[in-house]
Amino acid sequence: MLGLMQNWPLTVDRILTHAKTWHGGREIVTRSVEGAVVRTTYTELHERALKLTNALVALGIEPGDRVATLAWNTARHMEAWCAVMGMGAVCHTLNPRLFIEQLRYIINHAQDRIIFTDLSFLPTLAKLRGKIPSIEHVVVLTDRAHMADVAFDGALCFEDLVEQHPADALWGGFDENTAAGLCYTSGTTGDPKGVLYSHRSNVLHALLTLQADVMGLSARDVVLPIVPMFHSNAWGLTLSAPAVGAKLVMPGAKMDGASIYELIETEGVTFAAAVPTVWERLLDHLRATGARPTSLKRVLSGGAPTPEALVRAFQDELDVTVSQGWGMTEMSPLGTVSASTPEADALPPDARLRELLKQGRVPFGVEMKLTDEAGAPLAHDGRTFGHLKVRGPAIAREYFKGRGGDILDADGFLDTGDVATIDPLGFMQITDRAKDLIKSGGEWISSIEIEDLVDGHPKVALAAVIGVPDPKWEERPLLIVKLRAGEHATREEVLGFLEGKIARWWIPDEVLFVDEIRLGATGKIDKKRLRELYGSSAQGSARPLRSPTP
Amino acid sequence: MLGLMQNWPLTVDRILTHAKTWHGGREIVTRSVEGAVVRTTYTELHERALKLTNALVALGIEPGDRVATLAWNTARHMEAWCAVMGMGAVCHTLNPRLFIEQLRYIINHAQDRIIFTDLSFLPTLAKLRGKIPSIEHVVVLTDRAHMADVAFDGALCFEDLVEQHPADALWGGFDENTAAGLCYTSGTTGDPKGVLYSHRSNVLHALLTLQADVMGLSARDVVLPIVPMFHSNAWGLTLSAPAVGAKLVMPGAKMDGASIYELIETEGVTFAAAVPTVWERLLDHLRATGARPTSLKRVLSGGAPTPEALVRAFQDELDVTVSQGWGMTEMSPLGTVSASTPEADALPPDARLRELLKQGRVPFGVEMKLTDEAGAPLAHDGRTFGHLKVRGPAIAREYFKGRGGDILDADGFLDTGDVATIDPLGFMQITDRAKDLIKSGGEWISSIEIEDLVDGHPKVALAAVIGVPDPKWEERPLLIVKLRAGEHATREEVLGFLEGKIARWWIPDEVLFVDEIRLGATGKIDKKRLRELYGSSAQGSARPLRSPTP
Repeated sequence: MLGLMQNWPLTVDRILTHAKTWHGGREIVTRSVEGAVVRTTYTELHERALKLTNALVALGIEPGDRVATLAWNTARHMEAWCAVMGMGAVCHTLNPRLFIEQLRYIINHAQDRIIFTDLSFLPTLAKLRGKIPSIEHVVVLTDRAHMADVAFDGALCFEDLVEQHPADALWGGFDENTAAGLCYTSGTTGDPKGVLYSHRSNVLHALLTLQADVMGLSARDVVLPIVPMFHSNAWGLTLSAPAVGAKLVMPGAKMDGASIYELIETEGVTFAAAVPTVWERLLDHLRATGARPTSLKRVLSGGAPTPEALVRAFQDELDVTVSQGWGMTEMSPLGTVSASTPEADALPPDARLRELLKQGRVPFGVEMKLTDEAGAPLAHDGRTFGHLKVRGPAIAREYFKGRGGDILDADGFLDTGDVATIDPLGFMQITDRAKDLIKSGGEWISSIEIEDLVDGHPKVALAAVIGVPDPKWEERPLLIVKLRAGEHATREEVLGFLEGKIARWWIPDEVLFVDEIRLGATGKIDKKRLRELYGSSAQGSARPLRSPTP
Repeated sequence: MLGLMQNWPLTVDRILTHAKTWHGGREIVTRSVEGAVVRTTYTELHERALKLTNALVALGIEPGDRVATLAWNTARHMEAWCAVMGMGAVCHTLNPRLFIEQLRYIINHAQDRIIFTDLSFLPTLAKLRGKIPSIEHVVVLTDRAHMADVAFDGALCFEDLVEQHPADALWGGFDENTAAGLCYTSGTTGDPKGVLYSHRSNVLHALLTLQADVMGLSARDVVLPIVPMFHSNAWGLTLSAPAVGAKLVMPGAKMDGASIYELIETEGVTFAAAVPTVWERLLDHLRATGARPTSLKRVLSGGAPTPEALVRAFQDELDVTVSQGWGMTEMSPLGTVSASTPEADALPPDARLRELLKQGRVPFGVEMKLTDEAGAPLAHDGRTFGHLKVRGPAIAREYFKGRGGDILDADGFLDTGDVATIDPLGFMQITDRAKDLIKSGGEWISSIEIEDLVDGHPKVALAAVIGVPDPKWEERPLLIVKLRAGEHATREEVLGFLEGKIARWWIPDEVLFVDEIRLGATGKIDKKRLRELYGSSAQGSARPLRSPTP
């Protein structure tokens, strides 16, 4: 027997209409790419996006067509999203940090028909000219005045498109499973693969993030998404904020400490989201200037582990709570958040902080399991490494056009590719990417754990650990270190720093000092490249200095 | 084009499994009907409910069958809900405050096959014996020891059913639109009508309530649903609390001030929900004893307007925030909550409080509009009365078995039967039930507004206003007053109290002092009965004392 409740498809346009109707005057403030801080509202966003939908239709875009964006976080970028999704076309966010060749591959694979872009990315698009034949139009997210400087044949002006059309477009009215967004994961092996979000997954994801132990946003919050819209949908904030009517502050291209601090103070930001390096830079700026944020209450930090010193500094010096988050493009991206629990609150302060420094706990709507190689469940004891698998309504079931084949297990769980532990309080900690784990003497060594420790050495700028072949132990860890400018250090000095902090057989046998460790487009160490360069190093024949059995 | 996200049906069992898996040790504390305070956990709830599902299957229950409950808020009652919904049967909550004849009608209309009931309601069921032929089994929510006192032939013992079956039942796996719950509205006209909730509507409703500006519950909250599970699903708390892993405290049959206060203090309750009379009684108790709640932060008050004095007393004397809520059985029941906004916060304190005393604002997931008789939208100016209509994924589209016919307008909105205003800040205020409004000289008079004022008179225990026929003005308001015990008052005294507080033509012409004003099963004034008794009173020929034109 079916229930008798209303048929109300979960489509993204409903969030925008809610924001317009009940929070219409609430501002969206943007540090524009052109320079000025500009202000709009949810009412204006709604109206302008409706006009833009009509413009897209006039340009021949139909439901299901892919429309790309290559842009910073701005109100215009949001308007493009809303216009595309509202009409049932697919908004494809491009990561400008990708290499040209990757962008070319992705645009061609997605068969994007239009690209919305900022002035700052026109040189990138110029390099792609002639290589992305599906693109019919480039729309520059600017006004007529700034188009004068644009030396890009045939480029259209965003403000012209908005002005030339009426706001009478109709949004929604289709199946809630209709595709809404597309984002490619830049995976370190193989070609990038596209995650095709649906309206349903986007709306449910917004609701999942709104739980108090995730983001807990209110109409009284002022939200600053520093994490880019091309990085896993700005962690969903461009929908979560309008769903509750929170004021939005968009940082545009400037993510340095001074610019971010200025926005926080002048706009009264209460909640912000970014990767740890952004918080490091903000902290550096605040320490250098003696300035203190007055409105900021909580920041969400994700994309990489957040150092303990940073969390303590925010808490102790700024009275700002840092919540860890973990997720994936395939998860929309919400996975876990390190919200406390009564059990964690009952621990002594240092033990509590150790819990909160883990990647966190799953909210309702994300299922998570830890398994061995055969798929059997493993203990949540905080020590046992296992493959981390996830299931939920905002998690991918396959990649665009079938890339990568069947990616779910028999129970419908997606293998995250991460190896992790889950402790008795339910806090998950990423141990490593499965492919970056080092298997030594039949046991696993976490490259991340060693890297995090070495990164804490005052002379070290960046550390990376890869496995190198070993005739006796199968693999042994090799430590690759880039020192801070002007510093010198010896192998013994660096390895000695690890003594007593990890099991002796985890300590690498050799240290390679290098001038540069290349990062991928998402800011993570490119281990594939390190393995190519150093994976069959001279160490192959060296004996481990210590026994790999505990 | 459809998205490629996982198929994860929104079924209620997923909430229970989440609570068990990630908050398994969190307690559910019950003041049992038998007397003792008993403790269980989400893990035990899950396991016992699975066993009970097997027991239901053994008793012949199949998906789609209706299983009724006539019970107070207890962990056993929750276990019954979970067992029934988890297997795809329909949990039908019966309101024990209904008259026997109404219960008979409802049970027969629903064709319930089993009734779960508390010891305290066996006398009620005894009166129904022989009149509810669809009922095959009565299950008493108690243990074997207490069954000894049960003089009800054939009654089954709940604990026996749980003990006799294994916990290997399978839940879910069906269409998310499958019926999950059934609740009849006790409407003041016509026969009761059943609202048939679906799994999807229940899960979405839980997510909607979890928004910060609605309930904002956390795993660190301790939640006390005083509002009964038979009263619009305890406002959804029996699903919202496990979804976030909040500790639950169930008050059983005792809702007096002393009992509630004791539970709040001994269990550390942070959030509680009830109708205003419960809060009045709690306040009376606290004032009488000088006791103060130490853990309580926020209460949700709904089902009737909450008096200003109560809100002020909770804030000033107890440091507890009272949020108004408004909803309907047809809305699962979430409609509005009086959460503040930046605009309301900017008002002077008294003006801000006046906003927060209204029924509140809609969260995302509830659409609301105000229309005239013809369905045209009316201004949100805080003055214009209009018919209040609602749309959303947790709102009924029709009643069980088609009762009441087509209930949606052309745009799919349900007419709430209420007349309301919406102000420029988006706060909605119920003016009256449409059928209780008084039409005088072509203008509307709100019976509720006059009642609320008169209820504030120190000598008045309860006031009711109904329209009586008037040859000149069509209708005029008649004020019916029950005085507090031992008090005396004159017509002039009561009417004089209204001078200056409402438009002169709203002031009733006559006052009827009565010994009793009967309340319906949901605690509201039975105006249908008042109209039968007094609606064609002697006043019919009396001239209004004041001109009805403003």
